[in-house]
Amino acid sequence: MARGLVVLSSDPAAPRARPPGQVWLVGAGPGDPDLLTIKALRLLQGADVVVHDRLTPPAVLALAGPQARLIDVGKRKSRHTLPQDDINALLVALGLEGLKVVRLKGGDPFVFGRGGEEMLACRAAGLEVEVVPGVSAALAASARAGAPLTHRGLAQSVTFVTGHAAKDQEPDLDWTALATANHTVVVYMGLSTAPLIAARLMQAGRDAATPVLVVENASLAHEARVLTRLGDLATAVSALDGPAILIIGEVAALANDLAEILPEFERAKA
Amino acid sequence: MARGLVVLSSDPAAPRARPPGQVWLVGAGPGDPDLLTIKALRLLQGADVVVHDRLTPPAVLALAGPQARLIDVGKRKSRHTLPQDDINALLVALGLEGLKVVRLKGGDPFVFGRGGEEMLACRAAGLEVEVVPGVSAALAASARAGAPLTHRGLAQSVTFVTGHAAKDQEPDLDWTALATANHTVVVYMGLSTAPLIAARLMQAGRDAATPVLVVENASLAHEARVLTRLGDLATAVSALDGPAILIIGEVAALANDLAEILPEFERAKA
Repeated sequence: MARGLVVLSSDPAAPRARPPGQVWLVGAGPGDPDLLTIKALRLLQGADVVVHDRLTPPAVLALAGPQARLIDVGKRKSRHTLPQDDINALLVALGLEGLKVVRLKGGDPFVFGRGGEEMLACRAAGLEVEVVPGVSAALAASARAGAPLTHRGLAQSVTFVTGHAAKDQEPDLDWTALATANHTVVVYMGLSTAPLIAARLMQAGRDAATPVLVVENASLAHEARVLTRLGDLATAVSALDGPAILIIGEVAALANDLAEILPEFERAKA
Repeated sequence: MARGLVVLSSDPAAPRARPPGQVWLVGAGPGDPDLLTIKALRLLQGADVVVHDRLTPPAVLALAGPQARLIDVGKRKSRHTLPQDDINALLVALGLEGLKVVRLKGGDPFVFGRGGEEMLACRAAGLEVEVVPGVSAALAASARAGAPLTHRGLAQSVTFVTGHAAKDQEPDLDWTALATANHTVVVYMGLSTAPLIAARLMQAGRDAATPVLVVENASLAHEARVLTRLGDLATAVSALDGPAILIIGEVAALANDLAEILPEFERAKA
């Protein structure tokens, strides 16, 4: 029997004797290492391999244990370092090697992170996958700026959309639904399409005076915040180029230290 | 001069000599202590006083330092233990005593937490307020169930609403906007109004076959998950009574170990 097993395991077509690994899709939060969850920290410390994006801050990667191999599969807006299918295949291959694989995703894995696609690929390969939620960028931007996403009398609901669209295309969004007053709209990856988004929302009836808060690099040392109006958004964002969140709606005027720019909203703060 | 100061500080109308304290509005995450952020943990350990809600798990409160006074201002759905204005006043009073005050909020302080009202009250009193974001319940429910909130081809956006409404009133929501297909709707505190929400969404045109994932007590040991359809939601939730999140939309069918209940959605997972 022992001899038989040896023969089997040296046969490249035979199933691997090694137990399959596990993949964790882990939200890394907005960038400040202090905004990792305790669970994310523990998983980083125990991982055999950490698969991360280009924007993952060095201070977060530094929390991985000394044994962990770090693999950057970072994507740039206009140039995919590694296409999504290749990232999926990499996670599967690492998992099937029997490794403890931490796939670190900016923010939360299931909010505009394509984490669902990675989860399905791992599941299809028979790997165990656990998803660990994280602080999504919208929550960090809102907290840092002191502008709640919902607020009694100002916003009963909040919608997260992505400003990202295929080249030469518009984001596929329901502008009429988004243009409802007293409703916060958060745009992820919205800097390059901000002028278009503002125009479409105003065409659909949203007031040009609606306050908009732009938070670039939320939670990081080089964070920048701008408070403007929908009608002035295109101009206001022209100097920014980092990853940014747009918070569009009456709640934006509650932002710390910024609302004096828009004195007509002082009433909302009473 | 020293004598003058003594006279002044014993005058009840004089300004306090003690420096004002600081209030942190801290997201406690969904309940599992492992889903606190590192920052929340550090603040709990250093707080003089922790003001928390009824549903804050004992395992989270146990992370507060031994010096911390714990104050429960918990609200029940039908009976407010302490009205919001009294909570605001309490935070201000504690802050003005010069204490380090941690106001611990379930999930994230700025997503249906009334954190904005607490922030404004503290700001108006001249106190420094910092908001620390947390893992909102929707993100935890989505992660635990393996059902992403956005997913290529199934949902390009996600809207968070609250099912909570004043007594004998309906939630004030734009049903037509919410009924759009390929759009995820997450309902916080939606268990008691789930039958109404399902009816209104179907009247507004959302397909009765739309999958709905219900996650009760997300991230806790007694978590329960149910996958159903919009047309069956009222029946499906009748046995649940804990705090629950409804995830309404095509993404719900991707949930772990549950999708076989709805075999027509198997295609979505290919």
